Amino acid sequence: MTKVLLFLALFLPTSGLLADTGDALSAWNNTPSRQTIERWLADATTEGNPGYIPPQQRYVVFDNDGTLWPEAPMTFQLQFAFDEIKRLAPQHPEWQKDALVNAILKNDLATVAKSGQSGLMHLLTLTHSNMTTDEFDQRVTQWLARERHPRFGCRYDQLGYLPMRQLLDTLRSHGFKTWIISGGGIDFMRQVAEKMYGIPPEQVVGSFSLAEFALTNNGTQLRKTMNGAFYDDEAMKPVAIHLFMGHRPVAAFGNSDGDVPMLQYTSGNPAAKTFGLLIHHTDGVREYAYDAHPSASGKLVNGLTLAPHYGWTVVDMKKDWNQVFDPKLCPQAQ
Amino acid sequence: MTKVLLFLALFLPTSGLLADTGDALSAWNNTPSRQTIERWLADATTEGNPGYIPPQQRYVVFDNDGTLWPEAPMTFQLQFAFDEIKRLAPQHPEWQKDALVNAILKNDLATVAKSGQSGLMHLLTLTHSNMTTDEFDQRVTQWLARERHPRFGCRYDQLGYLPMRQLLDTLRSHGFKTWIISGGGIDFMRQVAEKMYGIPPEQVVGSFSLAEFALTNNGTQLRKTMNGAFYDDEAMKPVAIHLFMGHRPVAAFGNSDGDVPMLQYTSGNPAAKTFGLLIHHTDGVREYAYDAHPSASGKLVNGLTLAPHYGWTVVDMKKDWNQVFDPKLCPQAQ
Repeated sequence: MTKVLLFLALFLPTSGLLADTGDALSAWNNTPSRQTIERWLADATTEGNPGYIPPQQRYVVFDNDGTLWPEAPMTFQLQFAFDEIKRLAPQHPEWQKDALVNAILKNDLATVAKSGQSGLMHLLTLTHSNMTTDEFDQRVTQWLARERHPRFGCRYDQLGYLPMRQLLDTLRSHGFKTWIISGGGIDFMRQVAEKMYGIPPEQVVGSFSLAEFALTNNGTQLRKTMNGAFYDDEAMKPVAIHLFMGHRPVAAFGNSDGDVPMLQYTSGNPAAKTFGLLIHHTDGVREYAYDAHPSASGKLVNGLTLAPHYGWTVVDMKKDWNQVFDPKLCPQAQ
Repeated sequence: MTKVLLFLALFLPTSGLLADTGDALSAWNNTPSRQTIERWLADATTEGNPGYIPPQQRYVVFDNDGTLWPEAPMTFQLQFAFDEIKRLAPQHPEWQKDALVNAILKNDLATVAKSGQSGLMHLLTLTHSNMTTDEFDQRVTQWLARERHPRFGCRYDQLGYLPMRQLLDTLRSHGFKTWIISGGGIDFMRQVAEKMYGIPPEQVVGSFSLAEFALTNNGTQLRKTMNGAFYDDEAMKPVAIHLFMGHRPVAAFGNSDGDVPMLQYTSGNPAAKTFGLLIHHTDGVREYAYDAHPSASGKLVNGLTLAPHYGWTVVDMKKDWNQVFDPKLCPQAQ
């Protein structure tokens, strides 16, 4: 009799409403965070369930910096900009009297930080404009091939969080369309997102400015400018979602207060039982531990306060993830 | 012997390299335009052919007004704006001294036309801003249900060109991702594109301005504004393609000089044997005949001059299409 019960138990849904993700989420410990994801996923994809979401509504949005890959010691794109300044400075004698350039060349981060929003725009003007889009793509690709993360020693595009990559795959295998909605530059992220996360360029949305089209002797050209600069953070994230994706999301994943409006917009979707998740960087040993990172976009204070009200899942990186990085891609970062 | 040859002939590709589209393009006559499409399609989708295009590069772009549906006697969205002014005027006593509103109420098109770009912006401010995105969507839906095209007597969303809808279906069945890149408003077109053309919101790109996000007592809200207005025509079409689609197209379909930069950008794609097509409105009996329509975006002069140089196919609507509209949707328009 006992044997029969045991046998039957093998076929019973012991975890209640959890989705059968098998090893698909192997980098997640079997903690409440994972269980909440699996419960929502089962509910959303089982016809007849109260939380069922028809396939045509399955649009989900992810922040990038701090959510899909690290944003420390500084965002990877800021590191790219710094490295570009250093690489290009010898060719630009006119930069010699540029205070921001000089601060970067001296690794004087305090001065750079003090330059604020106008400093950032100036840095982007020097490193992200006045070249063709093809040239920019090439610079990013070459930078990725050349540089290594100062702490983990791997290429930057080898540092996607394994649990989040597994989550993206799992969502897609359940019919969800996965989008990035990030403060990062749209052209920058599109050079890595397909390979790292399986997300094609048209589903990668970020900060942008308008290119300039011109006919040339041997064809056409798109040149990057700073015109119409759009900073895709905070309240602009829902705006960007509406503009690019044209659907209200049913799930949103972020890690900072800059993601809160995107999560609120998602949670307010009247057409679905939605899901919201914030990643809390609690693992100073394997990654970084911070609530209020010096980089503005990394701050997670309001989000933690609001999470219980909205029913958002807060991932404790240290407890919820048994792997942070992919040991096949970056074995030295374990 | 003759019989054997005949028998063999049945299995020979009599039309050379034409794709086997069967009845899929039944609204197209068997003229050079259709044959050019089929030849390119066969080449692009047959592995080993010189013009073969790998599936991950198969992104194609379509203009909307005058390419997928009529733009006469005025663009449908302009008609929507006029109808909205008439519907809303009684609720807006402050409009009584507005010269543009008065011209519209008197159907004085000459005055409206003379108001130029600033008049258009003013009209859009009155009819396309200062409401939530949900309210706007509802207004478009209600307008579509209420109004009929003055000449054809059908709902506006029943007037998609049948040959172009067949072409969209055929391209998709060959693994192409179909996008709209149009001067029309992005929010306006997204209300019709999925049902009419099978194109989901995120693949519909048009003129836009930025919404404004706010928290409200019962959730969140996106409010339409005129901030950051982007007019998706002429040289801005390639810019929009890069921004939204993030791929360089391998085929482009348009009908006016406003589409020429988009076709040039496509033709200049070094990674593919591309295809360009312009629809020439030559059928005054079944639709309209014009090269230089009063609406700026309808003018086709440069395009006709440049077509031979770039190898673009020019569709003669009268000769190349045996149906303009779908007799099942709009029987009275035949």
